[in-house]
Amino acid sequence: MIINSAEILSVGTEILIGDIVNTDAAFISKRLAALGISQYYQAAVGDNSGRLRERIDEALSRCDLLILTGGLGPTYDDLTKETAAAAMGRRLVMHGESLARIKDFFVRMHPERGMTPNNEKQAMLPEGAVVFRNDHGTAPGCAIADESRGKTIIMLPGPPRELMPMWTDEVEPYLSRFTDHILYSKNVGICGLGESAVEDILHGMMLSDVNPTVAPYCGEGDVRLRITAACRDRDEGERMCGGVIDEIMKTDVGRFVYGIDCDLPEAAVRLLIEKGIHAAAAESCTGGLVAKRLTDVPGSSAAIEYCAVTYSERIKAEKLGIDPALIAEKTVYSPEVAEAMACGIMRESGADIGVGITGVAGPGGGTEAAPVGTVYVAAASRLGVKVKKLTLTGDRQHIRYLASNHALMMLIEAAREL
Amino acid sequence: MIINSAEILSVGTEILIGDIVNTDAAFISKRLAALGISQYYQAAVGDNSGRLRERIDEALSRCDLLILTGGLGPTYDDLTKETAAAAMGRRLVMHGESLARIKDFFVRMHPERGMTPNNEKQAMLPEGAVVFRNDHGTAPGCAIADESRGKTIIMLPGPPRELMPMWTDEVEPYLSRFTDHILYSKNVGICGLGESAVEDILHGMMLSDVNPTVAPYCGEGDVRLRITAACRDRDEGERMCGGVIDEIMKTDVGRFVYGIDCDLPEAAVRLLIEKGIHAAAAESCTGGLVAKRLTDVPGSSAAIEYCAVTYSERIKAEKLGIDPALIAEKTVYSPEVAEAMACGIMRESGADIGVGITGVAGPGGGTEAAPVGTVYVAAASRLGVKVKKLTLTGDRQHIRYLASNHALMMLIEAAREL
Repeated sequence: MIINSAEILSVGTEILIGDIVNTDAAFISKRLAALGISQYYQAAVGDNSGRLRERIDEALSRCDLLILTGGLGPTYDDLTKETAAAAMGRRLVMHGESLARIKDFFVRMHPERGMTPNNEKQAMLPEGAVVFRNDHGTAPGCAIADESRGKTIIMLPGPPRELMPMWTDEVEPYLSRFTDHILYSKNVGICGLGESAVEDILHGMMLSDVNPTVAPYCGEGDVRLRITAACRDRDEGERMCGGVIDEIMKTDVGRFVYGIDCDLPEAAVRLLIEKGIHAAAAESCTGGLVAKRLTDVPGSSAAIEYCAVTYSERIKAEKLGIDPALIAEKTVYSPEVAEAMACGIMRESGADIGVGITGVAGPGGGTEAAPVGTVYVAAASRLGVKVKKLTLTGDRQHIRYLASNHALMMLIEAAREL
Repeated sequence: MIINSAEILSVGTEILIGDIVNTDAAFISKRLAALGISQYYQAAVGDNSGRLRERIDEALSRCDLLILTGGLGPTYDDLTKETAAAAMGRRLVMHGESLARIKDFFVRMHPERGMTPNNEKQAMLPEGAVVFRNDHGTAPGCAIADESRGKTIIMLPGPPRELMPMWTDEVEPYLSRFTDHILYSKNVGICGLGESAVEDILHGMMLSDVNPTVAPYCGEGDVRLRITAACRDRDEGERMCGGVIDEIMKTDVGRFVYGIDCDLPEAAVRLLIEKGIHAAAAESCTGGLVAKRLTDVPGSSAAIEYCAVTYSERIKAEKLGIDPALIAEKTVYSPEVAEAMACGIMRESGADIGVGITGVAGPGGGTEAAPVGTVYVAAASRLGVKVKKLTLTGDRQHIRYLASNHALMMLIEAAREL
């Protein structure tokens, strides 16, 4: 039996009223793609057995593998197993090993209380099911396969901290017998060039009938290209994707690429560590966001010693040595002040690269000369200082985020020159 | 025309391969629930016009309102408008105002390059559509209503930063004509008390058959109580929720409440501004996260002048005046160093409150005395300095985030005393 297509059906009213974000579906989708199992459709339904049954029947008419998440718990509105078993013509039977594990779980968690009777229900599983152990909660998962119809249903608990390890430890080994190829992907990170400009340049590579495929998608203020190869194994995938990446680097897109399979801050920190140099940032409108993103990266203490949020003019003068007369003459939102901040923090920190950011993130504070979204970013090193004017749109958070992207990209460019 | 039931159909292969988590669906679901519009079913489909059309027809056979997200962009695989228009028997026409806005957007963003021709496609909209302006991107949203069939389709851009403000500013006013009552909610923010402790204390209020209802949900490191009233209008909702909040404040939960309808940083900044005082933070393991979260709040420049990321020991000595002998004696992960950082940044900045944070965010760097997750947070003011030891679990991001929560709560407590 080969599985070509799968669907995910998430069960739970909490999804339909927006109480939870369906991270399970994204997680499973990514792993299915890596296994080379296509997914054309995905859905969510509430805790209602009639509607659930309709959706199960409908999905099984289209796909080989239906993955149900949620609704395996102990309460009256947990209906997934009963409904799926009925759809596959199975009855539920008590699974002794699971019952023992659940009882044991309750004794460990609540020694005084033990297991309440409604929890026995969680050990009732479809006859003939392959059972997936739950090491992080009570409800076991399971799979029921009908060889004659060529249909399989997998049921998994809803909480991500239970579902994710169960998927990795139990479901993937179970699924590996059904597939004969994998999809292997690499992500190329691009900053400073919009999605449509990237598409203009790489148009010839972005065809749906080639292998590997190249697909653009928008990050927040950056563009990612996802290169996906259908291949026999990871080594072959690595070679196939690598060839496409080499071609991309030769085009005009190349100089805007900040890294492969990493985000902007990771690319910046890796480069600094690789070169054995330090950077420091003096931030006004981004208020610590550049420092926060750099120090999000594990090991960043090898590349960052000091950053300063210099929000007021007094502090810019005191902590970065900026002449108040310069601010008075040029205004605080000016290329000159961004440059002075970059040079100031480089000097104050003793770092090899200094980054300075000043501008108006809004919603208030805009002026005629510098409306909301006007941001100056500068990067200084012993080779000199560069400054860029940005005209950004969006809300305060988005403007700050985009400004921090540009600052990180200028940091990378300065580091490349050193 | 009254809308009783809605469905969300998310369009985009990036969802089916797990590249993005579908936060749009959760956001819209929550807002639909608040409008009293039921949702029994929700789905996602890839960028394929045949499958998309099938799903649109199927959804319209069940619900009154179909909300499509994604696929409004400029590229060849953005097919939502064409397909939805065909399903409703409409053709696409050029919408002049939207075209002008898109052109203007590109001129502002890329003065040298302007708009590429493929972006014109985004201004093609179904004949007779109500157009929703996009203030944060290029693709406008729209609604097409067929009064005779009693069916409406709404199309929204996929990026959350475009979709969310469009929903609030344009879609909700449009939808209000179709409903006869509203749900009104207030959120009470609590930090320093766990969900089950909150539930223990407020047990009597958390019944499902009262109006307003009180429901707890976990934030990242804090607890929110959502008070929801079914009511005729916002004024009535405000009165009903206000009464419940007054009751909560009289219980033992009261002193852990940091604010209503705001997050921790907003509560901190509002309090500082209200009191006319300033705060400053010196951060080691949080690396700018406290500064970033404080300056996320519009108007925070009235309360924050200076924060410092003092990552290395040398910088702690140079910029905060911490005696290297203290670090040598107590180690850098110690209550004494956290206190010295809080006092140092208060002195260096001239602020009324200084916050100091030092600890091990991991994954590396743990010691026997200070394993990963050990963080010391201190808050200083003219009334003295307080320090707290935290023992946190989770990954680097989570430890940093929880530490910043505690720092913000200590800042609020210090500000309340001044």
